Amino acid sequence: MGSPTRKPIQFTSRLTADAYAKGILDHDRVLLSRAITLVESRLPSDQLLSEELIQKILPHSGKSIRIGITGIPGVGKSTFIEAFGKHLTSIGKKLAVLAIDPSSQRTKGSILGDKTRMDELSRDDNAFIRPTSAANTLGGVAHKTREAILLCEAAGFDVIIVETVGVGQSEIAVRSMVDFFLLLLIGGAGDELQGIKKGIMEMADGVVITKADGDHKKQANQAKADYQHALHLFPVTESRWTPKVLVSSAVEKIGLKETWEMIEAYKAFTTTSGFFELQRANQNKNWFHSSIEERIKEEITKHKALAEKIKKAEIQIAQGVISPGAASREIVENFIQLLGKQ
Amino acid sequence: MGSPTRKPIQFTSRLTADAYAKGILDHDRVLLSRAITLVESRLPSDQLLSEELIQKILPHSGKSIRIGITGIPGVGKSTFIEAFGKHLTSIGKKLAVLAIDPSSQRTKGSILGDKTRMDELSRDDNAFIRPTSAANTLGGVAHKTREAILLCEAAGFDVIIVETVGVGQSEIAVRSMVDFFLLLLIGGAGDELQGIKKGIMEMADGVVITKADGDHKKQANQAKADYQHALHLFPVTESRWTPKVLVSSAVEKIGLKETWEMIEAYKAFTTTSGFFELQRANQNKNWFHSSIEERIKEEITKHKALAEKIKKAEIQIAQGVISPGAASREIVENFIQLLGKQ
Repeated sequence: MGSPTRKPIQFTSRLTADAYAKGILDHDRVLLSRAITLVESRLPSDQLLSEELIQKILPHSGKSIRIGITGIPGVGKSTFIEAFGKHLTSIGKKLAVLAIDPSSQRTKGSILGDKTRMDELSRDDNAFIRPTSAANTLGGVAHKTREAILLCEAAGFDVIIVETVGVGQSEIAVRSMVDFFLLLLIGGAGDELQGIKKGIMEMADGVVITKADGDHKKQANQAKADYQHALHLFPVTESRWTPKVLVSSAVEKIGLKETWEMIEAYKAFTTTSGFFELQRANQNKNWFHSSIEERIKEEITKHKALAEKIKKAEIQIAQGVISPGAASREIVENFIQLLGKQ
Repeated sequence: MGSPTRKPIQFTSRLTADAYAKGILDHDRVLLSRAITLVESRLPSDQLLSEELIQKILPHSGKSIRIGITGIPGVGKSTFIEAFGKHLTSIGKKLAVLAIDPSSQRTKGSILGDKTRMDELSRDDNAFIRPTSAANTLGGVAHKTREAILLCEAAGFDVIIVETVGVGQSEIAVRSMVDFFLLLLIGGAGDELQGIKKGIMEMADGVVITKADGDHKKQANQAKADYQHALHLFPVTESRWTPKVLVSSAVEKIGLKETWEMIEAYKAFTTTSGFFELQRANQNKNWFHSSIEERIKEEITKHKALAEKIKKAEIQIAQGVISPGAASREIVENFIQLLGKQ
């Protein structure tokens, strides 16, 4: 909402933390929306207010299943999420869909088109769709999305989908904030066209081959068999859950029920073993530590001279003039001196 | 070498940076050893001397192929490395073998047994074997290993093997400092016995099925076919190199020549595309930034009160009493205040 050097235009006035909290706990979607806008704001005053709000609703958070969904552009992610979402609301679930799209940094605003991508679902009373607003770093976007998850849970949503468009490191960020990570693949596209980054497949708790309709059914089932075989060769996961491969068709409404049943089975399996809670606890701990790193990085980049030195050092390192170890020592010493003078 | 609170016993006196550098550039293995001990030292004075030394030899570094090798205990890593190493020296290569073993942190000293694991190779004039000495964090160990690589290269070694025992996050650390990452697997052991962590398989540029001798040959070849098929389904790598699967037997001397030829083919392929240099440049840049993070973490943990606060916050986060975002803000504000008072 405006650059930090200019007085921003505020389209809505800020309420008190109590007012936001009350609205959220009353399941008021308008207030939920405004609260998410608040947590996304980069104004220091908004950040303090946001923190107060999160603290108030924290005891009411956590009661959902958090699902991450990724796949390359063209795999039919929106189509799948819409069909899957409609299934979920039809069986009584309250679904929130959040999107991590680092490319929105360039447009410095929400992807307004998102709602039209999932037209029918966005009109469903039991579904709430929210694109992520801009932030400067992936770390910043991830932080705000985590807080949006907490707000949605406090507002009564019991299934949270976080979708990512598969840019940069966003899958790793999504994986670190969800319980179940679902990978969508195209069947029969040929391997080179998948374009998925290394490591993503091994991160998945489930794989869905999309567009298994009409002429594509055979290819989709072949792909399912191939991936099932491949996953069988993978190492045992920490959760000890065996990732499953399903086929789906949004058009023919195939695989949607099965996808939800797979996720429920995962939840039951990992709750019994204790892994479900352990994973969440580890995720929170990692969020804490990476948040510390993020804030320190922000602190460093506030000091223009230091930020310049870092860029200079990167060039010298690339030229083989200075070793990374020596360069890092100088930067950190500088940083400490700078803070000493404040 | 002794804890920082006690005056350490020094078994060897320190030379000047020039003296170490001269010895290394003269390919003096004794001085190379002492130089590696120097970079591993945690004494601040040694760290400054070490930095000076690295700066001097930096222009002479880089002229090697860096190979990371991992596999679970029992796969026959030492046996493979010894046989592979003997092949390399027999074709005129000068080989240095470094080990990342975070468990050595517990013994707070080198793994003296390492040399006897690769008995024959350790007696080879053209091979140099060095276990990693203790450090407090994996980040610390990784940093020192990177510097040891530079020293070995300046000392004339043209193949550097970094081996890891597959504990914790060590594979990721090794991957970030090598050109080629080789994964050793047992053939026909059944998937659950592999015990490899998720993501490692997708990180590999090559896979070698070990112990393909006698009765195991058939299993090994079946495993090779299985993994080749699975790798075919993986996403295209950034390097665009197709990972290869080989079988090997240290006893029957199978697959050693082929492993080297695969690595040479990788080097040729990625040099032509420019990826080889690009990967090294990115690794250096990441080393720089993670080194900054490491140093700041060290700075934080120096302040006992702050380190206590962090532990306390972790407990409160686990109990759901405070959000990670709020906790991290407090910690960073405290840190900045503390530095302001120095």
